[in-house]
Amino acid sequence: MKTKTILLNSRPSAKPTKENFKFSEEEVPELKDGELLLKTKFVSVDPYLRGRMNDVKSYIPPFEIGKPITSVIIAEVTGSKNNDFKKGDFVSGNLAWKETQIANAKGLNKVDHKAADLTAYLGVLGMTGLTAYFGLTEIGKPKKGETLVVSGAAGAVGSIVGQIGKILGCKVIGIAGTDEKIEILKSKFGFDEGINYKTTKDINAAIKEAAPNGVDVYFDNVGGEITDAVLMNINKFGRIPTCGAIASYNDEEIPTGPRPQPILIKNSVLMQGFIVSNYADKFPEGIKQLATWLKESKITYSETVVEGFENIPQAFMDLFEGKNEGKMVVKI
Amino acid sequence: MKTKTILLNSRPSAKPTKENFKFSEEEVPELKDGELLLKTKFVSVDPYLRGRMNDVKSYIPPFEIGKPITSVIIAEVTGSKNNDFKKGDFVSGNLAWKETQIANAKGLNKVDHKAADLTAYLGVLGMTGLTAYFGLTEIGKPKKGETLVVSGAAGAVGSIVGQIGKILGCKVIGIAGTDEKIEILKSKFGFDEGINYKTTKDINAAIKEAAPNGVDVYFDNVGGEITDAVLMNINKFGRIPTCGAIASYNDEEIPTGPRPQPILIKNSVLMQGFIVSNYADKFPEGIKQLATWLKESKITYSETVVEGFENIPQAFMDLFEGKNEGKMVVKI
Repeated sequence: MKTKTILLNSRPSAKPTKENFKFSEEEVPELKDGELLLKTKFVSVDPYLRGRMNDVKSYIPPFEIGKPITSVIIAEVTGSKNNDFKKGDFVSGNLAWKETQIANAKGLNKVDHKAADLTAYLGVLGMTGLTAYFGLTEIGKPKKGETLVVSGAAGAVGSIVGQIGKILGCKVIGIAGTDEKIEILKSKFGFDEGINYKTTKDINAAIKEAAPNGVDVYFDNVGGEITDAVLMNINKFGRIPTCGAIASYNDEEIPTGPRPQPILIKNSVLMQGFIVSNYADKFPEGIKQLATWLKESKITYSETVVEGFENIPQAFMDLFEGKNEGKMVVKI
Repeated sequence: MKTKTILLNSRPSAKPTKENFKFSEEEVPELKDGELLLKTKFVSVDPYLRGRMNDVKSYIPPFEIGKPITSVIIAEVTGSKNNDFKKGDFVSGNLAWKETQIANAKGLNKVDHKAADLTAYLGVLGMTGLTAYFGLTEIGKPKKGETLVVSGAAGAVGSIVGQIGKILGCKVIGIAGTDEKIEILKSKFGFDEGINYKTTKDINAAIKEAAPNGVDVYFDNVGGEITDAVLMNINKFGRIPTCGAIASYNDEEIPTGPRPQPILIKNSVLMQGFIVSNYADKFPEGIKQLATWLKESKITYSETVVEGFENIPQAFMDLFEGKNEGKMVVKI
């Protein structure tokens, strides 16, 4: 049996392009004891993958040229030589961009397709939901009545952060890049205010107006000039979970800007970078809380579902153009 | 009775100059009920006063033009209409740059001149010692066997930070600006390594060599390019108490440089600004611990004592030329 696969062809110098990817075909090996035969159903594409395309030391090792790219995938078990999994089960895990693959069961988790839609396990009940939950509750520590600003607010993480902020009693302000997204933030996700950074001339002034009492928690998904403007409005003892710097992922050089230290000192502000796996020992607790809120309709989520294995690279590239609303998923 | 006083004459545009200060003479008013008559003995001059000379919102209000400058002063009670204080007592508090003054007792603390030298209450048992203690233990949280880097290491705060780091079992590396200071860091304060940032061409490489296991805690007294270089060597889960940005106090514009966020994310680093008064409710505990270490000769301190009321402005200006070794104090 043969399978299509997508390999890293070359490393991007700035934004990823289709030349960085190579479609190939390979033989699926024989199923051995303990292994599973998996059919890919849904592929998660995420901004952090851009970092793994560089050949630099990061929190997870870089992809290798000529080897398949991997991301979190929901797959159906179509063959099993492992007693813990049977044909017809669905699993989630970090898997290769292949239509069909053999995998060791290590690191795979069964997902319950009756409890929630399968794609929820790539988003609100997966990495993105857990990133929002732990970044906000463990670092941001919002208190009732405080003001929370979220950048990249219409994205998969940002939209969940804002909703959790509302559940916890905050005033929530979202920053996003189109009027349509701002509208969705308010109507669908219950944000109090939205700022379109592309059409707003003075973001600093817009934040000041939306947050007259200043900003207590800033969930930073983007970095760059948007973050500079939020910092101008941060309150004493403000907390900044630093989750993403998508504005700089495609830069070849380390981006420069105003140094944040004088503001951190002046206002005793905490700024803390994190990745979701820091909280791995608390994942069950996080998933349980998010699933409860989901069931109670206290949180909802958006997803952009692209169809077709051959469209995985384009779906990934579209993330950097802001073409997704919520979690970007490819259905195979 | 008349007293000399030093007023803010104008706001500095960059480094403070003697034109920013004005010597004056005024009548000392009558002592009223509850008040003390104080004779200034020792005046603390500190980098943070530079911030108060600007007309900008900061964690403490700016000095006013034509009004006396204030800082922490040790004074002798020479007259008292307050039952809690008697003639001959020594007090510490935020007082005006005057030879003699009347003060309300609020905010003044008695200091025990038998337990330690009076100047210790301006340094190791005062603001600078407490800044070192709480910044390091509450934010830096060093663990035995970890590597601690301290910038501004020969300064009043830095030299205490390094010694506490040694007491807590860390490898301690200090960064300072003269070979003489580096020598003192090692011989007097027990630092393991010292880096002279003025004569070292590649600070990044020098830190890498001194800290082959990377940097776990960086006590940042300076900001700027020294901080950029330390960040290049920060370990996963590194912690950065952000205490000072002396490199930028004299800048008119917000200084720019490489954005730290990508490194904070990559290594899950915490960067937290603070001022010592955040920990005011724990001051007694901190003073007790520092006094114990001082008595046990586990910590020592340097001070630069300048003599003469008329030399207060110059002593302050000399801080920005690095002319002090340890705490800068003016004896009246």
